[in-house]
Amino acid sequence: MISVDDALNMIAENTEVLEAERVDIVHCLNKVLAEDIYSNDNLPPFDKSAMDGYAIRSEDTNNLSGENIIGLEIIGVIKAGDYSKEELNTGQAFKIMTGAALPKGADGVIEIEKVKVKDNKVYISKEVSEGNNIIKLGEEIKKGDLALKKGKIIRPSEVGLLASLGYSSVKVYKSPKVALIITGDELVDIDSKLERGKIRNSNEYSLRALISNLEAEILSLGIVSDDKNTLKEKVNYALENADIVISSGGASVGDYDFIEEILKEIGADIKFNKVSIKPGKPVTFATYKEKLFFGLPGNPMSLITTFEELVKPAIEIMKGKVNLHAEEIEVILADDFKAKAGRRKYIYVELRKENGAYYAHNLGKQCSNHLMVMSKTNGLIIIPEERGTVKAGEVVRGKFMFR
Amino acid sequence: MISVDDALNMIAENTEVLEAERVDIVHCLNKVLAEDIYSNDNLPPFDKSAMDGYAIRSEDTNNLSGENIIGLEIIGVIKAGDYSKEELNTGQAFKIMTGAALPKGADGVIEIEKVKVKDNKVYISKEVSEGNNIIKLGEEIKKGDLALKKGKIIRPSEVGLLASLGYSSVKVYKSPKVALIITGDELVDIDSKLERGKIRNSNEYSLRALISNLEAEILSLGIVSDDKNTLKEKVNYALENADIVISSGGASVGDYDFIEEILKEIGADIKFNKVSIKPGKPVTFATYKEKLFFGLPGNPMSLITTFEELVKPAIEIMKGKVNLHAEEIEVILADDFKAKAGRRKYIYVELRKENGAYYAHNLGKQCSNHLMVMSKTNGLIIIPEERGTVKAGEVVRGKFMFR
Repeated sequence: MISVDDALNMIAENTEVLEAERVDIVHCLNKVLAEDIYSNDNLPPFDKSAMDGYAIRSEDTNNLSGENIIGLEIIGVIKAGDYSKEELNTGQAFKIMTGAALPKGADGVIEIEKVKVKDNKVYISKEVSEGNNIIKLGEEIKKGDLALKKGKIIRPSEVGLLASLGYSSVKVYKSPKVALIITGDELVDIDSKLERGKIRNSNEYSLRALISNLEAEILSLGIVSDDKNTLKEKVNYALENADIVISSGGASVGDYDFIEEILKEIGADIKFNKVSIKPGKPVTFATYKEKLFFGLPGNPMSLITTFEELVKPAIEIMKGKVNLHAEEIEVILADDFKAKAGRRKYIYVELRKENGAYYAHNLGKQCSNHLMVMSKTNGLIIIPEERGTVKAGEVVRGKFMFR
Repeated sequence: MISVDDALNMIAENTEVLEAERVDIVHCLNKVLAEDIYSNDNLPPFDKSAMDGYAIRSEDTNNLSGENIIGLEIIGVIKAGDYSKEELNTGQAFKIMTGAALPKGADGVIEIEKVKVKDNKVYISKEVSEGNNIIKLGEEIKKGDLALKKGKIIRPSEVGLLASLGYSSVKVYKSPKVALIITGDELVDIDSKLERGKIRNSNEYSLRALISNLEAEILSLGIVSDDKNTLKEKVNYALENADIVISSGGASVGDYDFIEEILKEIGADIKFNKVSIKPGKPVTFATYKEKLFFGLPGNPMSLITTFEELVKPAIEIMKGKVNLHAEEIEVILADDFKAKAGRRKYIYVELRKENGAYYAHNLGKQCSNHLMVMSKTNGLIIIPEERGTVKAGEVVRGKFMFR
């Protein structure tokens, strides 16, 4: 049995970022940039007005004050999108709209709210400084400058930036395809009536949701019977057609748990088969060529916990992400939590913010078979391997769920 | 001009949750449940074993200790998914797999690791208590009990729970359709070369990403020229075919900003047209029948900020969400931040966690025209209306972006 940290290191060592592909920016959100992006233009590409107002020569307003005013002749209007070839001479002004290109000769803009207009003249009663309300050519970025670095996660503001730089598509890392193999002769489909001894297949649906939350692709092979030959065939098919294969169930020591035998027979390299995590423990991790295999426990809560802690980081690495860990916070225990020393324990709780601190409230017995308790939780606390029961008032590490 | 808080209240008062629709659970992730979900079964539907081991009668192990051992006859094996009709008598044991139904007569399971097996007998050397390693019928939930309440956000664990309860589809609130109208004669498409006076249409792409981040539907009408009749036609079409209409640009006081005129002409109810927010300010909010209209500023950074602060809450309300605000945190300023008293200021920063506290680092000049600075940020600080420049060491409110 290895520690959670050693397991994570081993997974990281054996996981490679996937190849890049060119994708339309409309479909790039939350993907990772696989190329440096340089600006092909100056942004803005011209000096422009930041306001609706009047473009003037600032020297015309030297020494103006409340009593000393000047009237400039309005020689035209420049709308956003237009461009005037006419040069502004002393004593003249252009009416100009926000975003419009500054005319030649002008070096300042005074806001529309600060002037009076009469008989085609604009009257100004205060000095306008050079550059006032002007956004200079190249102020945001200059032609040839690095705009976004390889490895950057593309958020809405980056999508907008790429559009403004003229990139309609960019190279991003592919998202992995994740195959699902659900084992267990006790499982029946959602719509089936429950006969004696049977339960419904919930793990496939939890996994589908967990994977689509990470925007990876799903290849579900559905429920596979606890028959070694059938299972072996499915494992082979999954490893050929996906980047990551997840099985649920079949990873403990029962007589009908064939996953480890099959992995050995096909020549996969089993890295570990037990992790010091609770809920969890019987987790198998193996590599086969450049593919990853995770054998997760069949208990619904163990499945979700081991997916979030061990499989999610592998998916994120393949997608090109570097900062893998959901942010951990300090949590004050509002109640006692019973636990046994041994494995690292992930206990699902209700996290409540009270007086600026996070408190963990106990939601009662946690059985790794149960999803009901998870539906009442919004986070978890992490009790270190060596610790047993923790008491109200103690401070531990914790985090919010599914972030 | 109204405050951000008043604007938010007015938006909330005028926004209704959308109608419900029945959706397959595979497509329910992050939607809000529009019905109470009751359990149609007991879960688990039978007493079952939590371990691979031997099902026994606990009374057979009374008073056992290291020296005093007992050998029970193994009368069969029960796999997960199977069900045995045979009753267990005193002196007998069933081998049983994790998840398998407990046979009649048995009231405890001892783990496989804790026994010795020889000649079809299992040897036990310690007392097994009643109920040991047994998950009782209905322990997770009982038939008829409320499992999930209307209003619950469906996360991966809820998807799994719904599957385990036999629900292949549930009623959830619809996601709004959001129409986009991008105005500005200065705008050209991404792939166009920049002529004098023109800039590229980035707002449409920022908005598409912001909206798809919220899993709402997009109806983009593209760039609409600054011509009143054309614009009016598009506004009418958008209000007929979407739940929310967003325009970008055309909301300030320029001669070619027709949005407010058009809203008045079609009989929309304009609730406000200026908000005390920076970047932002010229934001128009209007209702037309049960539809919402947001006129957002054309500056890229103002657009993203006003979308996140004002439009996102309306989308969330329509989707049935109650807890609308991204979690605000306390932030210590690592640098000074220049600001003017007046509007509530949202300044994009780099938030870094140092010694358990969040520090806000200044990333330099913020021009609401620029998206470049946003690409370097991961959060923002909020400077109250009445405050001007804030100094390093001060504590202010802040939050992470796009959460």
